[in-house]
Amino acid sequence: MRDVKTLIEQMTLEEKAGLCSGDNFWRTKAVERLGIPAINLADGPHGLRAQGEEQDHLGVNDSRPATCFPTAAGLASSWSVERLEQLGAALGDEARAEGLHVVLGPGANIKRSPLCGRNFEYFSEDPLLSSQLAAAHIRGTQSRGVGSSLKHFAANNQEHRRMSVDARIDERTLREIYLASFEHAVKEAHPWTVMCAYNRLNGDYCSEHQRLLTDILRDEWGFEGFVVSDWGAVNERVSGLEAGMELEMPAPVGERDAQIAAAVREGRVEEAVLDQAVERLLRIIFKAHDARPEHAAFDAEAHHQLARHIARESMVLLQNDGTLPLKNTQRVAVIGEFAERPRYQGGGSSHVNATRVETLLEALESRDARFNYLKGFEIDRDASDQQLEQDAATAAVHADVAVLCLGLPERHESEGYDRTHLNLPANQLTLIEAVTRVQPNTVVVLANGAPIAMPWAGQVNAILEGYLGGQAIGAALADLLYGEVSPSGKLAETFPQRLEDNPVHLNFPGQGDVVNYGEGIFVGYRYHDTHDVAPLFPFGHGLSYARFDYASLTLSADTFDGQDTLTVGVDITNSGDRKASEIVQLYLSDQTQTVPVAAQALRGFDRVTLAPGETSRVELVLTRRDFCWYDAERADWRMPTGTFEVRIGASSRDIRLTQRLEVQGDATPLPVIDRNTLLGDLKAHDGAVRVLREHLADIADELPMLNALMGREGSDDLMNAMGHYLPLRAIISFSSFTEARLERLLKDLETLASP
Amino acid sequence: MRDVKTLIEQMTLEEKAGLCSGDNFWRTKAVERLGIPAINLADGPHGLRAQGEEQDHLGVNDSRPATCFPTAAGLASSWSVERLEQLGAALGDEARAEGLHVVLGPGANIKRSPLCGRNFEYFSEDPLLSSQLAAAHIRGTQSRGVGSSLKHFAANNQEHRRMSVDARIDERTLREIYLASFEHAVKEAHPWTVMCAYNRLNGDYCSEHQRLLTDILRDEWGFEGFVVSDWGAVNERVSGLEAGMELEMPAPVGERDAQIAAAVREGRVEEAVLDQAVERLLRIIFKAHDARPEHAAFDAEAHHQLARHIARESMVLLQNDGTLPLKNTQRVAVIGEFAERPRYQGGGSSHVNATRVETLLEALESRDARFNYLKGFEIDRDASDQQLEQDAATAAVHADVAVLCLGLPERHESEGYDRTHLNLPANQLTLIEAVTRVQPNTVVVLANGAPIAMPWAGQVNAILEGYLGGQAIGAALADLLYGEVSPSGKLAETFPQRLEDNPVHLNFPGQGDVVNYGEGIFVGYRYHDTHDVAPLFPFGHGLSYARFDYASLTLSADTFDGQDTLTVGVDITNSGDRKASEIVQLYLSDQTQTVPVAAQALRGFDRVTLAPGETSRVELVLTRRDFCWYDAERADWRMPTGTFEVRIGASSRDIRLTQRLEVQGDATPLPVIDRNTLLGDLKAHDGAVRVLREHLADIADELPMLNALMGREGSDDLMNAMGHYLPLRAIISFSSFTEARLERLLKDLETLASP
Repeated sequence: MRDVKTLIEQMTLEEKAGLCSGDNFWRTKAVERLGIPAINLADGPHGLRAQGEEQDHLGVNDSRPATCFPTAAGLASSWSVERLEQLGAALGDEARAEGLHVVLGPGANIKRSPLCGRNFEYFSEDPLLSSQLAAAHIRGTQSRGVGSSLKHFAANNQEHRRMSVDARIDERTLREIYLASFEHAVKEAHPWTVMCAYNRLNGDYCSEHQRLLTDILRDEWGFEGFVVSDWGAVNERVSGLEAGMELEMPAPVGERDAQIAAAVREGRVEEAVLDQAVERLLRIIFKAHDARPEHAAFDAEAHHQLARHIARESMVLLQNDGTLPLKNTQRVAVIGEFAERPRYQGGGSSHVNATRVETLLEALESRDARFNYLKGFEIDRDASDQQLEQDAATAAVHADVAVLCLGLPERHESEGYDRTHLNLPANQLTLIEAVTRVQPNTVVVLANGAPIAMPWAGQVNAILEGYLGGQAIGAALADLLYGEVSPSGKLAETFPQRLEDNPVHLNFPGQGDVVNYGEGIFVGYRYHDTHDVAPLFPFGHGLSYARFDYASLTLSADTFDGQDTLTVGVDITNSGDRKASEIVQLYLSDQTQTVPVAAQALRGFDRVTLAPGETSRVELVLTRRDFCWYDAERADWRMPTGTFEVRIGASSRDIRLTQRLEVQGDATPLPVIDRNTLLGDLKAHDGAVRVLREHLADIADELPMLNALMGREGSDDLMNAMGHYLPLRAIISFSSFTEARLERLLKDLETLASP
Repeated sequence: MRDVKTLIEQMTLEEKAGLCSGDNFWRTKAVERLGIPAINLADGPHGLRAQGEEQDHLGVNDSRPATCFPTAAGLASSWSVERLEQLGAALGDEARAEGLHVVLGPGANIKRSPLCGRNFEYFSEDPLLSSQLAAAHIRGTQSRGVGSSLKHFAANNQEHRRMSVDARIDERTLREIYLASFEHAVKEAHPWTVMCAYNRLNGDYCSEHQRLLTDILRDEWGFEGFVVSDWGAVNERVSGLEAGMELEMPAPVGERDAQIAAAVREGRVEEAVLDQAVERLLRIIFKAHDARPEHAAFDAEAHHQLARHIARESMVLLQNDGTLPLKNTQRVAVIGEFAERPRYQGGGSSHVNATRVETLLEALESRDARFNYLKGFEIDRDASDQQLEQDAATAAVHADVAVLCLGLPERHESEGYDRTHLNLPANQLTLIEAVTRVQPNTVVVLANGAPIAMPWAGQVNAILEGYLGGQAIGAALADLLYGEVSPSGKLAETFPQRLEDNPVHLNFPGQGDVVNYGEGIFVGYRYHDTHDVAPLFPFGHGLSYARFDYASLTLSADTFDGQDTLTVGVDITNSGDRKASEIVQLYLSDQTQTVPVAAQALRGFDRVTLAPGETSRVELVLTRRDFCWYDAERADWRMPTGTFEVRIGASSRDIRLTQRLEVQGDATPLPVIDRNTLLGDLKAHDGAVRVLREHLADIADELPMLNALMGREGSDDLMNAMGHYLPLRAIISFSSFTEARLERLLKDLETLASP
């Protein structure tokens, strides 16, 4: 390893400043006289967008051909850590072949609202699932000597005014939901870089958010790589440098180098701050070059087959009355332009120039299926075309089953802007009417990156959610429709019945440049389950062609005190007649109600593949953190004491087995002692009660609201409540107690706090 | 009038400081040597709680007998400005007779959650209705030379941790909902005093909230009286004085006088601040004494009849299939202990020692009704008593109709603590089952101060919501049940089907000492109507024994520009066969969607009494403010431009007539100009577009996202969105634009802003 510190000493101020922004849109600056090479970065999380030498100012020209895998919304539905690692490794291989050093992804932002235009690029509404999958993605890529850039840090949960909006989030919600989705990935997978988000968080731009980029990311979580700005996310460059944002991308024509150099020269920033940034950059730059092989290539056909394999596991069978799987003997009317013009990826920076694309029509032809194809509607228009519809209906009449290929056109759903409703375009809705009116066996196949409303769900027999299935989408769909493999994906997000049922709807996308996360921790199923709002399809839901039985739930102990771990075991049996995979979910329900909590939270999951009749034991491990809530006042995780319920489910709303668990949590800390400490908050502490009784003994007669504290009888509910909610200073208001005595009382209480 | 300023010059520092807190629990300090008298204060808003000379430390001993009127929850259901004035005047008369100078009330807090234990003392979930009724109450009392104390200012919307909790409310919500409920009452009715709330608001205690007590209350709204602390609400006395809180109650044994005097002596507070407080106090003290008659008395019997009259208008017929009114010939089984032990008022500081109480049983006896009475359940227990239930069922079998007297026991609902659910006690629920199983004609009469859930509503024939009906409750109920008068009250709050349907449920009562008003402006019907959540009974709902037709909606103009006023007229006809009153409601629906708004908002109402066949024209006047939203960034009310719908309804969900109205609102102001101003926000301003085009002409080729701005073609949705949401400073990131040029651009844009 090079002596980076010596190297930094040899660099001029300008060279050091220069290293902190790109040479062009996708590359850092080299310092040839010192042997410092440049590194190349490229989008994206489900397929590379290597720009090669044809740079452009926005980086949206056609990139070099690469495998387009399903986007994160689908990937997450596989709930497969192994598959995400495999995908990450494949991206790493392609990156090496293209001379890239850092792949910009994965994205671990929480799906706060189904309307967010970029949800297709994110994993889940649940931070555990999201961060575990992000970690796997990173491990895979980095196992090939290519860096990942975990993005967009943090709270970039909408596209609407994304470069200026201020996400106002209370600390507990931030920690438990939005940061938690990054935390595990950073701690366990050690991404080489983290990409800061465009937006502001509680007032400060993420690109210059000291608390976020340094205090939390590095000091708390141990991140050792460098932070890169989202492209164009820099507000004040020097503030960003100080906050811990090392690399600005793209390169504002050398402007910033001068700004940084001037700030150091004028003493506004210590040179040590710049040196540290340069050191972090250099360590990754050299790491990238040291890891890079002489020659690298990838097998495009093998990656296409991997994309097909992943796609099959990424799709979710939402509804099925037995119409699926199709039989080879059935005459199928395939209807909908998506069958020939598939929407297999999202719009924006993640847009991949796929090596090839396999449509559903091609896949059906290659398997000699008995089908004919009708366009049904035009993707590029929302208005109905009566002729297309009528032709489709006529074809449907003469078929055994109709397969409707529907979804969201790209203009409805893209990076850069959010949707404003959950509906399919009007022409698709009338097509559903036209076909189901004449054909009693109708299957809907969906291509979309985020939930849609389905007022028509009751009219169709089966719904296969294909998400954005990548370049092998057609083959994967055919495999599932005809039962070559059983669907096994499960939703990583809630499908609400209607937009109004989403708690975020009250506060999305905000007013002006402020968006208040007023729903707090109650995102996704945490809202639906706690407030009993029935979803269209719940978090964790997905059907199979097989059947699975759950039995023999065991816990490695009846109680848990946060030491070591607790293992939860369950037997899963495939009682169906074909090989299939099941995603087993573990939810914890905190019934201590120490603070407002969600009815349940996902705390573990596994995916098992079983032959017919086969049984496998799944073991899931819980740790202290799984039981904790974040105490913002004390800036720490706290484990409550009392009863939890361990729930094993096939979905969040299909809990199969439960068991109670007694948890011995942290001692309730003494509240902060000041004039406004409540009597009621002190009552849980014997020491405090003793002190209070001593100090208040002589005035207790004046204050019936003290009766409960003093161990006396005779107070009514009102007086008890007043006594409970009484700040210490208010004793003065209601009695002959004095300021001087209050001060002495506070001193004695403080002694308890610091023994 | 005395020369108050000269008097202040004659006062010692100690005398002045002394005037700023009470002499005892209910009285200020006199300064006899200067002829400054004391004034007496007493609860409360629907009946006096004059403590007389028997002071106690908490002021909860039995007070002197006074008329107990229905509490505010019922009063508000009358929607009667006239009746509220009459009530206020009656309170004023009783206060004069008792030697009181200030009556502590009315309470204008918004009913944010149905769980708040003190909701019975507040008017409504709607600020217009609340503030209009509060103003009438104040006008009535003060017309008798007695002062009102408008309370609890502000955002005291829960009892849970009320003395320490910090209500975190965004500025727009605060202005449009929580402060608006006080604003009109202060501006129009000029209360002599305002009582500050216990809680904190956005970090500061209301008792020391400079912005609230001085900037808004006095400087903006023109309040000229004094602010009194809620009893025990003072945190730091000197901070409170500086913030504009003149009178602390009760009197902390002289402690505070010394604190204030010391602060002045040590120069920590200017003496002028104290002098101003004393001046405000003295002006009211002398006003009170000047207005006080030599001898005063009130006619207890006349006030009892007034209480009966008001109670009849305060009750709401929620449901009726024709079972009501009862006929004198019917045999009635009156069931439920509330019939003999009525709950007619709430618990806590507003508890009145009534001059007499008329129960339903007494009222029925006095009218020779054919009834027998069964206890059915015990108020003081929640558990069922099978014998009582069986006796009740047996009686019900032999009657023509059963009248169940149900409600919330006082322990369920009181000042001091909040409810945790909306259910009736278990014994009442089983009683409903037992009776309705055997009697097909069942009427439920409710005594409660806030909404309850009614999963049993479909099992009963009629529901009469009596609220807390005051001391004449029994007579009023009998009058309505037997149709002597028709019910005419309408709900001033939404009854949700279940607690989870209330938007506040996500954020109530908060965690620790923080409650985040995450639902924003979407309180009550504003939520239910905007998010289409069906209530059990909607805001504004109430049935009658008559029928009313709505016709001939007219507007005084087709357009409105905020100058002058707009008059909305409608004909109301009583098409029933008996005299009755109808409450006509005007809602405005802002369809401009300039900012997130509620689907509709109450902007006017009237109450008309009509003989059978009679028609009356109701005219309601709209002003500019009715069309405005509060722009926090510019700290001003803004009128949007576009279409509004004027809706006339018999309830918020029974809209009878609508008409569209084109509104010419305020010009969209130029956004604040800085490096983060968005391109999209400038596009609405021709001048800004000209400046931008000049400055960006030569680099526009580099940035396809500028195409829309430059009037060019060829951009896709993504680029257009990026261009719309692009901060000016990001032009540098994506092009060869420079910091120096950005500065020049900003300068030219700023010139537009300040012409």
